[in-house]
Amino acid sequence: MFSGAQISLYPMTDDFVGVITNALSALDPYREKLRIETDDISTLLVGTPDVVFAAMRDLFAAAAASGKHCVLHATISRGCPGEPDDPMCQVPEFLGPWAPLDERKAKAHAAVADAPVIGQESAAQFSLYTLGIDGHMDEIYGCIDFVKNSGTFEKSKNFCTKLRGDTGAVFSTVHEALVRFGPPAGHVTIDLTVSANSPSKR
Amino acid sequence: MFSGAQISLYPMTDDFVGVITNALSALDPYREKLRIETDDISTLLVGTPDVVFAAMRDLFAAAAASGKHCVLHATISRGCPGEPDDPMCQVPEFLGPWAPLDERKAKAHAAVADAPVIGQESAAQFSLYTLGIDGHMDEIYGCIDFVKNSGTFEKSKNFCTKLRGDTGAVFSTVHEALVRFGPPAGHVTIDLTVSANSPSKR
Repeated sequence: MFSGAQISLYPMTDDFVGVITNALSALDPYREKLRIETDDISTLLVGTPDVVFAAMRDLFAAAAASGKHCVLHATISRGCPGEPDDPMCQVPEFLGPWAPLDERKAKAHAAVADAPVIGQESAAQFSLYTLGIDGHMDEIYGCIDFVKNSGTFEKSKNFCTKLRGDTGAVFSTVHEALVRFGPPAGHVTIDLTVSANSPSKR
Repeated sequence: MFSGAQISLYPMTDDFVGVITNALSALDPYREKLRIETDDISTLLVGTPDVVFAAMRDLFAAAAASGKHCVLHATISRGCPGEPDDPMCQVPEFLGPWAPLDERKAKAHAAVADAPVIGQESAAQFSLYTLGIDGHMDEIYGCIDFVKNSGTFEKSKNFCTKLRGDTGAVFSTVHEALVRFGPPAGHVTIDLTVSANSPSKR
């Protein structure tokens, strides 16, 4: 299994470099458990999904604490057949048999209920893609049903599902979508956008 | 077939609202051929891929002409089984049989060679997902091979492929990836990020 994300942080301010630089220290607690590579479009985080999601959450919350309109985008992946296996990325959810959908939904709900409260409201939208399997929409509809009852659901949109809530619950919801849906050893990806302090109408 | 994109424009400036508002007139030539809906995270464009990509390209180029660091993100989809068929979205590439991979690559190269020159350099990265089929990586590797010879290829990254070039050629390359790879009537999605005027190292 290989898992990680390409992430980008967009602070809508003349001082976007300062906001990003100040937020980077939020990654410090996670650096030993991640491989990190940066270029002019995105930063790669390779590690287990729990570490990758916690790092993204804390980075985003630190940037949003500036009060500026900030957006984080992440291209998240696990199990891509084109990437090497990496022991750094192993978690229990990716091993063993494929549990029934209802059991996975229940575990996902329990995890979101246990998510830390960050104290920063975020809106988000994401698309889940379960690749290389027939009947991929069954897993996607199962995930949408979980999200609708997660406490963070705002609305369904074309091509994605929109969330709103505390940043802790929002990132936990998307983390659970990645690890609980699709085959345990399968190729699953997420296209995620998280936004705070937007002046626009919902 | 139903096709379109959820797009977001991020100008990294205090005047992000002004940059976005000024760029919106670039959509005017396409408005009659698109369904457009906006909320606080993204704007939905529903229409044929050629119109959706031309609209995204011109909107992005207009924003980038401000000289500010601007990023456009798009969640692009065609053929999602959860969306209704829409006659507004029909194009020849989605009808008829599945042509051999080499023939599709040749058509994709010809289209990129014919792309209009916009006069604005962009960097971009994208991930192509062909859903609901076995052997999805064959289509993805076929697409990567096309991109490597498209004239816009910069490098392979984990989870995505990075492009650089004139904004016309860059958007044309991603458009061809969407319409030429995966089954003609299949569910294919793209996670796209385009960036201009970045101060960061490549």
